[in-house]
Amino acid sequence: MEKLTVFKIGGKVIDDANTLNTFLDTFQKVPSPKILVHGGGKWVSSMCEKLDIPVNMVDGRRITDADTLEVVKMMLAGVANKNIVSQLQARQINALGFTGADANLIRAHKRPLKNGVDYGYVGDVDEVNAEVLSKILQIGITPVLAAMTHDGKGQLLNTNADTIASTVAVGMSGVFQVELVYCFEMPGVLQDINNPESVISKIDRRNYDQLKGEGVIHTGMIPKIDNAFDAINKGVTGVRICHAMDIANIHVRPETTGTLIY
Amino acid sequence: MEKLTVFKIGGKVIDDANTLNTFLDTFQKVPSPKILVHGGGKWVSSMCEKLDIPVNMVDGRRITDADTLEVVKMMLAGVANKNIVSQLQARQINALGFTGADANLIRAHKRPLKNGVDYGYVGDVDEVNAEVLSKILQIGITPVLAAMTHDGKGQLLNTNADTIASTVAVGMSGVFQVELVYCFEMPGVLQDINNPESVISKIDRRNYDQLKGEGVIHTGMIPKIDNAFDAINKGVTGVRICHAMDIANIHVRPETTGTLIY
Repeated sequence: MEKLTVFKIGGKVIDDANTLNTFLDTFQKVPSPKILVHGGGKWVSSMCEKLDIPVNMVDGRRITDADTLEVVKMMLAGVANKNIVSQLQARQINALGFTGADANLIRAHKRPLKNGVDYGYVGDVDEVNAEVLSKILQIGITPVLAAMTHDGKGQLLNTNADTIASTVAVGMSGVFQVELVYCFEMPGVLQDINNPESVISKIDRRNYDQLKGEGVIHTGMIPKIDNAFDAINKGVTGVRICHAMDIANIHVRPETTGTLIY
Repeated sequence: MEKLTVFKIGGKVIDDANTLNTFLDTFQKVPSPKILVHGGGKWVSSMCEKLDIPVNMVDGRRITDADTLEVVKMMLAGVANKNIVSQLQARQINALGFTGADANLIRAHKRPLKNGVDYGYVGDVDEVNAEVLSKILQIGITPVLAAMTHDGKGQLLNTNADTIASTVAVGMSGVFQVELVYCFEMPGVLQDINNPESVISKIDRRNYDQLKGEGVIHTGMIPKIDNAFDAINKGVTGVRICHAMDIANIHVRPETTGTLIY
Protein backbone atom coordinates (compact mmCIF):
# COMPACT_ATOMS: atom_id res chain seq x y z
CA MET A 1 0.00 0.00 0.00
CA GLU A 2 1.12 3.56 -0.75
CA LYS A 3 2.22 5.69 2.20
CA LEU A 4 0.22 8.74 3.34
CA THR A 5 1.19 11.18 6.08
CA VAL A 6 -1.43 13.17 8.00
CA PHE A 7 -0.06 16.21 9.86
CA LYS A 8 -1.80 18.18 12.54
CA ILE A 9 -0.75 21.70 13.49
CA GLY A 10 -2.33 24.07 15.96
CA GLY A 11 -1.48 26.38 18.79
CA LYS A 12 1.86 28.09 18.49
CA VAL A 13 2.59 26.88 14.94
CA ILE A 14 -0.39 28.70 13.49
CA ASP A 15 -0.66 31.75 15.72
CA ASP A 16 2.48 33.48 14.49
CA ALA A 17 2.89 34.22 10.74
CA ASN A 18 6.69 33.70 10.81
CA THR A 19 6.45 30.36 12.60
CA LEU A 20 3.75 29.25 10.17
CA ASN A 21 5.90 30.24 7.18
CA THR A 22 8.89 28.31 8.53
CA PHE A 23 6.65 25.32 9.14
CA LEU A 24 5.27 25.49 5.58
CA ASP A 25 8.84 25.60 4.19
CA THR A 26 9.42 22.35 6.06
CA PHE A 27 6.06 20.85 5.08
CA GLN A 28 6.92 21.51 1.43
CA LYS A 29 9.84 19.06 1.70
CA VAL A 30 7.74 16.14 2.96
CA PRO A 31 6.96 13.64 0.18
CA SER A 32 3.36 13.49 -1.10
CA PRO A 33 0.69 12.27 -0.63
CA LYS A 34 0.14 14.26 2.55
CA ILE A 35 -2.74 15.94 4.36
CA LEU A 36 -2.55 18.96 6.67
CA VAL A 37 -5.10 19.45 9.46
CA HIS A 38 -5.11 22.77 11.28
CA GLY A 39 -6.80 24.48 14.20
CA GLY A 40 -6.62 28.19 14.86
CA GLY A 41 -8.29 28.61 18.22
CA LYS A 42 -6.47 31.76 19.25
CA TRP A 43 -7.58 33.53 16.05
CA VAL A 44 -11.16 32.58 16.89
CA SER A 45 -10.82 33.85 20.46
CA SER A 46 -9.25 37.11 19.38
CA MET A 47 -12.00 37.80 16.79
CA CYS A 48 -14.69 36.89 19.36
CA GLU A 49 -13.15 39.52 21.60
CA LYS A 50 -13.23 42.16 18.82
CA LEU A 51 -16.89 41.36 18.16
CA ASP A 52 -17.83 41.27 21.87
CA ILE A 53 -18.77 37.59 21.74
CA PRO A 54 -18.04 35.93 25.10
CA VAL A 55 -15.48 33.09 24.98
CA ASN A 56 -16.59 30.07 27.04
CA MET A 57 -14.25 27.14 27.58
CA VAL A 58 -14.95 23.98 29.61
CA ASP A 59 -11.90 21.73 30.22
CA GLY A 60 -10.06 23.41 27.35
CA ARG A 61 -12.95 22.81 24.93
CA ARG A 62 -14.79 25.73 23.38
CA ILE A 63 -18.52 26.17 23.93
CA THR A 64 -19.66 27.04 20.42
CA ASP A 65 -22.86 29.08 20.37
CA ALA A 66 -24.36 30.37 17.09
CA ASP A 67 -22.29 33.59 17.10
CA THR A 68 -19.08 31.72 17.90
CA LEU A 69 -19.75 29.26 15.06
CA GLU A 70 -19.86 32.19 12.62
CA VAL A 71 -16.47 33.30 13.92
CA VAL A 72 -15.11 29.75 13.51
CA LYS A 73 -16.26 29.82 9.86
CA MET A 74 -14.65 33.24 9.44
CA MET A 75 -11.30 32.54 11.07
CA LEU A 76 -10.75 28.81 10.47
CA ALA A 77 -12.43 28.14 7.10
CA GLY A 78 -11.78 31.72 5.91
CA VAL A 79 -8.58 33.33 7.12
CA ALA A 80 -6.43 30.47 8.51
CA ASN A 81 -7.30 27.93 5.80
CA LYS A 82 -6.91 30.34 2.88
CA ASN A 83 -3.64 31.77 4.23
CA ILE A 84 -2.19 28.27 4.46
CA VAL A 85 -3.49 27.28 1.01
CA SER A 86 -2.15 30.40 -0.73
CA GLN A 87 1.21 30.09 1.07
CA LEU A 88 1.48 26.43 0.00
CA GLN A 89 0.67 27.40 -3.59
CA ALA A 90 3.59 29.85 -3.41
CA ARG A 91 5.70 26.79 -2.53
CA GLN A 92 4.46 24.78 -5.55
CA ILE A 93 2.28 22.52 -3.39
CA ASN A 94 -1.14 22.18 -5.03
CA ALA A 95 -3.11 22.74 -1.83
CA LEU A 96 -6.90 22.74 -1.63
CA GLY A 97 -8.76 23.81 1.50
CA PHE A 98 -11.63 21.83 3.02
CA THR A 99 -14.02 21.85 5.90
CA GLY A 100 -15.81 18.58 6.62
CA ALA A 101 -18.73 19.87 4.53
CA ASP A 102 -16.60 20.28 1.41
CA ALA A 103 -16.91 17.19 -0.79
CA ASN A 104 -18.85 15.73 2.17
CA LEU A 105 -15.49 14.85 3.68
CA ILE A 106 -16.37 14.48 7.38
CA ARG A 107 -19.85 13.79 8.71
CA ALA A 108 -20.57 14.39 12.37
CA HIS A 109 -23.50 14.84 14.71
CA LYS A 110 -24.06 17.66 17.15
CA ARG A 111 -22.72 16.58 20.53
CA PRO A 112 -25.51 15.75 23.00
CA LEU A 113 -25.38 17.16 26.54
CA LYS A 114 -22.28 15.79 28.26
CA ASN A 115 -22.20 15.80 32.05
CA GLY A 116 -24.82 18.52 31.90
CA VAL A 117 -22.65 20.67 29.58
CA ASP A 118 -24.12 21.91 26.29
CA TYR A 119 -21.14 22.36 23.97
CA GLY A 120 -23.35 24.01 21.34
CA TYR A 121 -22.42 23.59 17.67
CA VAL A 122 -19.70 21.03 18.32
CA GLY A 123 -19.52 17.90 16.18
CA ASP A 124 -18.56 14.34 17.14
CA VAL A 125 -17.30 12.59 14.01
CA ASP A 126 -19.33 9.76 12.46
CA GLU A 127 -17.64 9.11 9.13
CA VAL A 128 -14.70 10.13 6.95
CA ASN A 129 -15.26 9.99 3.18
CA ALA A 130 -12.11 8.03 2.29
CA GLU A 131 -13.28 7.45 -1.28
CA VAL A 132 -13.49 11.13 -2.24
CA LEU A 133 -10.35 11.99 -0.29
CA SER A 134 -8.43 9.27 -2.16
CA LYS A 135 -9.63 10.62 -5.51
CA ILE A 136 -8.53 14.12 -4.50
CA LEU A 137 -5.07 12.81 -3.52
CA GLN A 138 -4.85 10.86 -6.79
CA ILE A 139 -5.14 14.03 -8.86
CA GLY A 140 -2.07 15.45 -7.10
CA ILE A 141 -3.79 17.69 -4.58
CA THR A 142 -2.67 18.27 -0.98
CA PRO A 143 -5.80 18.67 1.18
CA VAL A 144 -5.69 21.32 3.93
CA LEU A 145 -8.44 20.61 6.47
CA ALA A 146 -9.90 23.30 8.73
CA ALA A 147 -11.18 21.71 11.93
CA MET A 148 -14.88 21.79 11.09
CA THR A 149 -17.38 19.04 10.24
CA HIS A 150 -21.01 19.01 9.08
CA ASP A 151 -24.12 17.01 9.84
CA GLY A 152 -25.22 16.51 6.23
CA LYS A 153 -28.36 18.53 6.92
CA GLY A 154 -26.81 21.93 6.32
CA GLN A 155 -25.27 22.50 9.75
CA LEU A 156 -21.53 23.13 10.10
CA LEU A 157 -20.00 22.04 13.40
CA ASN A 158 -16.84 22.99 15.27
CA THR A 159 -14.63 19.95 15.88
CA ASN A 160 -11.33 19.48 17.71
CA ALA A 161 -8.41 19.41 15.26
CA ASP A 162 -6.63 16.49 17.04
CA THR A 163 -9.81 14.44 16.63
CA ILE A 164 -10.16 15.38 12.94
CA ALA A 165 -6.53 14.37 12.33
CA SER A 166 -6.87 10.98 14.02
CA THR A 167 -10.25 10.12 12.46
CA VAL A 168 -8.97 11.11 8.99
CA ALA A 169 -5.84 8.99 9.57
CA VAL A 170 -7.98 6.03 10.67
CA GLY A 171 -10.45 6.56 7.81
CA MET A 172 -7.66 6.54 5.21
CA SER A 173 -5.90 3.49 6.67
CA GLY A 174 -7.99 1.11 4.58
CA VAL A 175 -6.54 2.64 1.39
CA PHE A 176 -3.08 3.84 2.48
CA GLN A 177 -0.36 2.96 4.96
CA VAL A 178 -0.95 6.00 7.18
CA GLU A 179 1.37 7.76 9.62
CA LEU A 180 -0.19 10.45 11.78
CA VAL A 181 2.09 13.27 12.94
CA TYR A 182 1.20 15.69 15.73
CA CYS A 183 3.38 18.80 15.39
CA PHE A 184 4.34 20.58 18.61
CA GLU A 185 6.79 23.13 19.91
CA MET A 186 8.57 20.26 21.71
CA PRO A 187 10.91 17.72 20.07
CA GLY A 188 8.82 14.75 21.29
CA VAL A 189 7.81 12.96 24.48
CA LEU A 190 10.62 13.67 26.96
CA GLN A 191 12.14 11.33 29.56
CA ASP A 192 13.02 14.44 31.55
CA ILE A 193 10.68 17.38 30.99
CA ASN A 194 13.56 19.81 31.62
CA ASN A 195 15.89 18.20 29.08
CA PRO A 196 14.90 18.61 25.40
CA GLU A 197 17.64 16.11 24.49
CA SER A 198 15.85 13.33 26.39
CA VAL A 199 13.34 12.44 23.64
CA ILE A 200 11.88 8.94 24.01
CA SER A 201 12.22 7.69 20.43
CA LYS A 202 9.70 4.86 20.59
CA ILE A 203 6.73 3.95 22.71
CA ASP A 204 4.90 0.65 22.34
CA ARG A 205 2.25 -0.92 24.59
CA ARG A 206 4.85 -2.55 26.80
CA ASN A 207 7.16 0.38 27.59
CA TYR A 208 4.12 2.72 27.76
CA ASP A 209 2.83 0.91 30.85
CA GLN A 210 6.33 0.98 32.32
CA LEU A 211 6.78 4.73 31.56
CA LYS A 212 3.41 5.47 33.11
CA GLY A 213 4.29 3.38 36.16
CA GLU A 214 7.57 5.27 36.61
CA GLY A 215 5.69 8.59 36.35
CA VAL A 216 7.74 9.63 33.29
CA ILE A 217 4.59 10.10 31.23
CA HIS A 218 2.34 12.41 33.19
CA THR A 219 -1.30 13.49 33.21
CA GLY A 220 -1.38 15.87 30.21
CA MET A 221 0.30 13.42 27.86
CA ILE A 222 -1.69 10.29 28.82
CA PRO A 223 -4.93 11.06 26.88
CA LYS A 224 -2.88 12.00 23.80
CA ILE A 225 -0.97 8.71 23.86
CA ASP A 226 -4.12 6.74 24.66
CA ASN A 227 -5.72 8.31 21.56
CA ALA A 228 -2.62 7.42 19.57
CA PHE A 229 -2.90 3.75 20.56
CA ASP A 230 -6.59 3.88 19.74
CA ALA A 231 -5.76 5.14 16.19
CA ILE A 232 -3.17 2.36 15.85
CA ASN A 233 -5.69 -0.26 16.96
CA LYS A 234 -7.98 1.05 14.22
CA GLY A 235 -5.38 0.69 11.44
CA VAL A 236 -2.94 3.64 11.55
CA THR A 237 0.67 2.39 11.17
CA GLY A 238 2.24 4.82 13.62
CA VAL A 239 1.64 8.08 15.43
CA ARG A 240 4.53 10.50 15.79
CA ILE A 241 4.80 13.42 18.20
CA CYS A 242 7.53 15.80 17.08
CA HIS A 243 8.63 19.39 16.74
CA ALA A 244 6.83 21.22 13.93
CA MET A 245 10.17 22.21 12.39
CA ASP A 246 11.48 18.61 12.35
CA ILE A 247 8.86 17.10 10.05
CA ALA A 248 11.10 17.16 6.97
CA ASN A 249 13.25 14.59 8.82
CA ILE A 250 10.59 11.99 9.51
CA HIS A 251 11.19 10.24 6.21
CA VAL A 252 14.95 10.84 6.27
CA ARG A 253 15.75 9.95 9.89
CA PRO A 254 12.60 8.24 11.16
CA GLU A 255 14.45 6.59 14.06
CA THR A 256 15.61 9.85 15.61
CA THR A 257 12.81 12.31 14.82
CA GLY A 258 10.37 12.86 17.67
CA THR A 259 8.56 10.07 19.46
CA LEU A 260 6.99 7.25 17.46
CA ILE A 261 4.05 5.46 19.01
CA TYR A 262 3.43 2.13 17.28
CA MET B 1 -18.47 17.92 -26.15
CA GLU B 2 -20.21 17.55 -22.80
CA LYS B 3 -22.31 20.48 -21.58
CA LEU B 4 -21.29 22.54 -18.52
CA THR B 5 -23.26 25.37 -16.93
CA VAL B 6 -21.57 28.14 -14.94
CA PHE B 7 -23.90 30.10 -12.67
CA LYS B 8 -23.17 33.41 -11.00
CA ILE B 9 -25.14 34.67 -8.03
CA GLY B 10 -24.59 37.77 -5.97
CA GLY B 11 -26.45 40.70 -4.52
CA LYS B 12 -29.95 39.96 -3.44
CA VAL B 13 -29.76 36.19 -3.97
CA ILE B 14 -27.04 35.77 -1.38
CA ASP B 15 -27.89 38.48 1.15
CA ASP B 16 -31.05 36.88 2.46
CA ALA B 17 -30.95 33.33 3.89
CA ASN B 18 -34.46 32.45 2.66
CA THR B 19 -33.82 33.66 -0.87
CA LEU B 20 -30.53 31.75 -0.92
CA ASN B 21 -32.26 28.57 0.26
CA THR B 22 -34.94 28.86 -2.42
CA PHE B 23 -32.22 29.46 -5.01
CA LEU B 24 -30.29 26.37 -3.85
CA ASP B 25 -33.48 24.26 -4.11
CA THR B 26 -33.65 25.38 -7.72
CA PHE B 27 -29.91 24.94 -8.35
CA GLN B 28 -30.21 21.35 -7.10
CA LYS B 29 -32.52 20.54 -10.04
CA VAL B 30 -30.08 21.74 -12.72
CA PRO B 31 -28.26 18.80 -14.39
CA SER B 32 -24.55 18.37 -13.59
CA PRO B 33 -21.79 19.21 -14.37
CA LYS B 34 -22.31 22.72 -13.02
CA ILE B 35 -20.25 25.39 -11.26
CA LEU B 36 -21.55 28.08 -8.90
CA VAL B 37 -19.72 31.41 -8.54
CA HIS B 38 -20.80 33.72 -5.73
CA GLY B 39 -20.07 37.17 -4.38
CA GLY B 40 -21.22 38.40 -1.00
CA GLY B 41 -20.35 42.07 -1.00
CA LYS B 42 -22.97 43.18 1.48
CA TRP B 43 -21.73 40.66 4.06
CA VAL B 44 -18.25 42.11 3.64
CA SER B 45 -19.52 45.68 4.04
CA SER B 46 -21.56 44.82 7.11
CA MET B 47 -18.61 43.06 8.83
CA CYS B 48 -16.30 45.97 7.91
CA GLU B 49 -18.78 48.22 9.68
CA LYS B 50 -18.78 46.03 12.81
CA LEU B 51 -14.98 46.06 12.86
CA ASP B 52 -14.74 49.82 12.17
CA ILE B 53 -13.01 49.30 8.84
CA PRO B 54 -13.94 52.08 6.40
CA VAL B 55 -15.73 50.92 3.22
CA ASN B 56 -14.38 52.64 0.10
CA MET B 57 -16.05 52.14 -3.27
CA VAL B 58 -15.05 53.72 -6.60
CA ASP B 59 -17.57 53.25 -9.46
CA GLY B 60 -19.17 50.35 -7.58
CA ARG B 61 -15.83 48.58 -7.11
CA ARG B 62 -14.43 47.99 -3.63
CA ILE B 63 -11.07 49.45 -2.65
CA THR B 64 -9.53 46.47 -0.85
CA ASP B 65 -6.91 47.49 1.70
CA ALA B 66 -5.17 44.89 3.91
CA ASP B 67 -7.87 44.98 6.62
CA THR B 68 -10.68 44.71 4.06
CA LEU B 69 -8.95 41.73 2.43
CA GLU B 70 -9.06 39.90 5.77
CA VAL B 71 -12.80 40.58 5.93
CA VAL B 72 -13.22 39.28 2.35
CA LYS B 73 -11.46 36.05 3.41
CA MET B 74 -13.69 35.84 6.48
CA MET B 75 -17.04 36.54 4.85
CA LEU B 76 -16.62 35.22 1.28
CA ALA B 77 -14.25 32.25 1.66
CA GLY B 78 -15.43 31.57 5.22
CA VAL B 79 -19.10 32.28 5.92
CA ALA B 80 -20.76 32.66 2.48
CA ASN B 81 -18.86 29.83 0.80
CA LYS B 82 -19.25 27.34 3.64
CA ASN B 83 -22.93 28.13 4.14
CA ILE B 84 -23.58 27.45 0.45
CA VAL B 85 -21.47 24.26 0.48
CA SER B 86 -23.12 22.80 3.59
CA GLN B 87 -26.60 23.72 2.28
CA LEU B 88 -25.87 22.03 -1.05
CA GLN B 89 -24.64 18.93 0.79
CA ALA B 90 -28.00 18.85 2.57
CA ARG B 91 -29.51 18.71 -0.96
CA GLN B 92 -27.31 15.76 -2.02
CA ILE B 93 -25.11 17.94 -4.23
CA ASN B 94 -21.46 17.07 -3.58
CA ALA B 95 -20.29 20.68 -3.36
CA LEU B 96 -16.70 21.73 -2.70
CA GLY B 97 -15.73 25.33 -1.98
CA PHE B 98 -12.82 27.10 -3.68
CA THR B 99 -11.08 30.41 -3.83
CA GLY B 100 -8.77 30.95 -6.79
CA ALA B 101 -5.88 29.82 -4.56
CA ASP B 102 -7.44 26.41 -3.90
CA ALA B 103 -6.04 23.86 -6.36
CA ASN B 104 -4.40 26.88 -8.02
CA LEU B 105 -7.69 27.43 -9.80
CA ILE B 106 -7.45 31.10 -10.78
CA ARG B 107 -4.22 33.06 -11.07
CA ALA B 108 -4.32 36.82 -11.14
CA HIS B 109 -2.06 39.82 -10.67
CA LYS B 110 -2.62 42.76 -8.37
CA ARG B 111 -4.27 45.52 -10.37
CA PRO B 112 -1.89 48.38 -11.16
CA LEU B 113 -2.96 51.98 -10.57
CA LYS B 114 -5.95 52.71 -12.84
CA ASN B 115 -6.73 56.35 -13.64
CA GLY B 116 -4.81 57.24 -10.50
CA VAL B 117 -6.93 54.88 -8.35
CA ASP B 118 -5.18 52.26 -6.20
CA TYR B 119 -7.70 49.44 -5.84
CA GLY B 120 -5.48 47.68 -3.29
CA TYR B 121 -5.61 43.88 -3.10
CA VAL B 122 -7.75 43.44 -6.20
CA GLY B 123 -6.82 40.84 -8.78
CA ASP B 124 -7.12 40.94 -12.56
CA VAL B 125 -7.36 37.36 -13.83
CA ASP B 126 -4.48 35.86 -15.84
CA GLU B 127 -5.36 32.17 -16.07
CA VAL B 128 -7.99 29.59 -15.17
CA ASN B 129 -6.72 26.07 -14.40
CA ALA B 130 -9.14 24.19 -16.67
CA GLU B 131 -7.22 20.93 -16.27
CA VAL B 132 -7.67 20.68 -12.48
CA LEU B 133 -11.24 21.98 -12.64
CA SER B 134 -12.11 19.30 -15.23
CA LYS B 135 -10.65 16.59 -13.00
CA ILE B 136 -12.68 17.89 -10.06
CA LEU B 137 -15.87 17.83 -12.16
CA GLN B 138 -15.04 14.31 -13.39
CA ILE B 139 -15.09 12.93 -9.85
CA GLY B 140 -18.67 14.16 -9.43
CA ILE B 141 -18.00 17.34 -7.50
CA THR B 142 -19.87 20.64 -7.91
CA PRO B 143 -17.37 23.48 -7.41
CA VAL B 144 -18.56 26.54 -5.46
CA LEU B 145 -16.25 29.47 -6.17
CA ALA B 146 -15.87 32.43 -3.80
CA ALA B 147 -14.88 35.54 -5.76
CA MET B 148 -11.19 35.57 -4.81
CA THR B 149 -8.04 34.86 -6.82
CA HIS B 150 -4.34 34.55 -5.94
CA ASP B 151 -1.05 35.66 -7.45
CA GLY B 152 0.78 32.35 -6.95
CA LYS B 153 3.20 34.07 -4.57
CA GLY B 154 1.07 33.72 -1.45
CA GLN B 155 -1.17 36.73 -1.95
CA LEU B 156 -4.96 36.33 -2.09
CA LEU B 157 -6.78 38.97 -4.13
CA ASN B 158 -10.36 40.22 -4.21
CA THR B 159 -11.92 39.79 -7.66
CA ASN B 160 -15.30 40.74 -9.11
CA ALA B 161 -17.64 37.71 -9.20
CA ASP B 162 -19.00 38.53 -12.70
CA THR B 163 -15.42 38.51 -13.99
CA ILE B 164 -14.63 35.20 -12.26
CA ALA B 165 -17.75 33.64 -13.76
CA SER B 166 -16.97 34.76 -17.31
CA THR B 167 -13.26 33.86 -17.18
CA VAL B 168 -14.06 30.42 -15.74
CA ALA B 169 -16.69 29.92 -18.47
CA VAL B 170 -14.18 30.96 -21.14
CA GLY B 171 -11.40 28.86 -19.56
CA MET B 172 -13.59 25.74 -19.56
CA SER B 173 -14.87 26.23 -23.11
CA GLY B 174 -11.94 24.29 -24.58
CA VAL B 175 -13.09 21.19 -22.70
CA PHE B 176 -16.86 21.64 -22.43
CA GLN B 177 -19.72 23.25 -24.30
CA VAL B 178 -20.25 26.04 -21.74
CA GLU B 179 -23.32 28.13 -21.00
CA LEU B 180 -22.83 31.03 -18.59
CA VAL B 181 -25.85 32.09 -16.54
CA TYR B 182 -26.08 35.38 -14.65
CA CYS B 183 -28.78 35.09 -11.99
CA PHE B 184 -30.70 38.23 -11.14
CA GLU B 185 -33.87 39.37 -9.43
CA MET B 186 -35.23 40.23 -12.91
CA PRO B 187 -36.60 37.71 -15.43
CA GLY B 188 -34.15 38.84 -18.13
CA VAL B 189 -33.40 41.85 -20.35
CA LEU B 190 -36.69 43.70 -20.73
CA GLN B 191 -38.09 45.42 -23.80
CA ASP B 192 -40.00 47.69 -21.42
CA ILE B 193 -38.34 48.18 -18.03
CA ASN B 194 -41.77 48.52 -16.37
CA ASN B 195 -43.15 45.29 -17.82
CA PRO B 196 -41.61 42.07 -16.44
CA GLU B 197 -43.51 40.16 -19.19
CA SER B 198 -41.51 41.92 -21.91
CA VAL B 199 -38.40 39.71 -21.71
CA ILE B 200 -36.29 39.78 -24.87
CA SER B 201 -35.67 36.06 -25.37
CA LYS B 202 -32.64 36.29 -27.66
CA ILE B 203 -29.99 38.84 -28.43
CA ASP B 204 -27.44 38.34 -31.19
CA ARG B 205 -24.98 40.82 -32.69
CA ARG B 206 -27.53 42.07 -35.21
CA ASN B 207 -30.52 42.81 -32.98
CA TYR B 208 -28.17 44.07 -30.23
CA ASP B 209 -27.11 47.02 -32.39
CA GLN B 210 -30.73 47.65 -33.27
CA LEU B 211 -31.88 47.46 -29.60
CA LYS B 212 -29.09 49.84 -28.60
CA GLY B 213 -30.04 52.21 -31.44
CA GLU B 214 -33.67 52.20 -30.32
CA GLY B 215 -32.60 52.98 -26.74
CA VAL B 216 -34.22 49.75 -25.45
CA ILE B 217 -30.92 48.58 -23.97
CA HIS B 218 -29.64 51.35 -21.77
CA THR B 219 -26.41 52.35 -20.07
CA GLY B 220 -26.34 49.92 -17.10
CA MET B 221 -26.93 46.85 -19.25
CA ILE B 222 -24.52 47.69 -22.11
CA PRO B 223 -21.22 46.71 -20.35
CA LYS B 224 -22.82 43.43 -19.17
CA ILE B 225 -23.93 42.51 -22.69
CA ASP B 226 -20.60 43.63 -24.16
CA ASN B 227 -18.86 41.29 -21.70
CA ALA B 228 -21.26 38.51 -22.70
CA PHE B 229 -20.34 38.91 -26.38
CA ASP B 230 -16.68 38.99 -25.38
CA ALA B 231 -17.11 35.62 -23.59
CA ILE B 232 -18.92 34.21 -26.65
CA ASN B 233 -16.11 35.41 -28.95
CA LYS B 234 -13.71 33.52 -26.68
CA GLY B 235 -15.59 30.21 -26.90
CA VAL B 236 -18.62 30.26 -24.56
CA THR B 237 -21.72 28.88 -26.35
CA GLY B 238 -24.21 31.27 -24.82
CA VAL B 239 -24.72 33.72 -21.97
CA ARG B 240 -28.08 33.81 -20.26
CA ILE B 241 -29.45 36.56 -18.02
CA CYS B 242 -32.39 35.28 -16.01
CA HIS B 243 -34.18 35.32 -12.69
CA ALA B 244 -32.36 33.32 -10.00
CA MET B 245 -35.49 31.27 -9.34
CA ASP B 246 -35.93 30.33 -13.03
CA ILE B 247 -32.66 28.45 -13.52
CA ALA B 248 -34.26 25.00 -13.23
CA ASN B 249 -36.09 25.87 -16.48
CA ILE B 250 -33.09 26.70 -18.63
CA HIS B 251 -32.65 23.10 -19.73
CA VAL B 252 -36.41 22.41 -19.84
CA ARG B 253 -37.64 25.57 -21.61
CA PRO B 254 -34.46 27.21 -22.94
CA GLU B 255 -36.40 29.30 -25.48
CA THR B 256 -38.51 31.07 -22.89
CA THR B 257 -36.26 31.34 -19.85
CA GLY B 258 -34.55 34.69 -19.48
CA THR B 259 -32.53 36.37 -22.20
CA LEU B 260 -30.02 34.32 -24.18
CA ILE B 261 -27.09 36.17 -25.69
CA TYR B 262 -25.46 34.06 -28.40
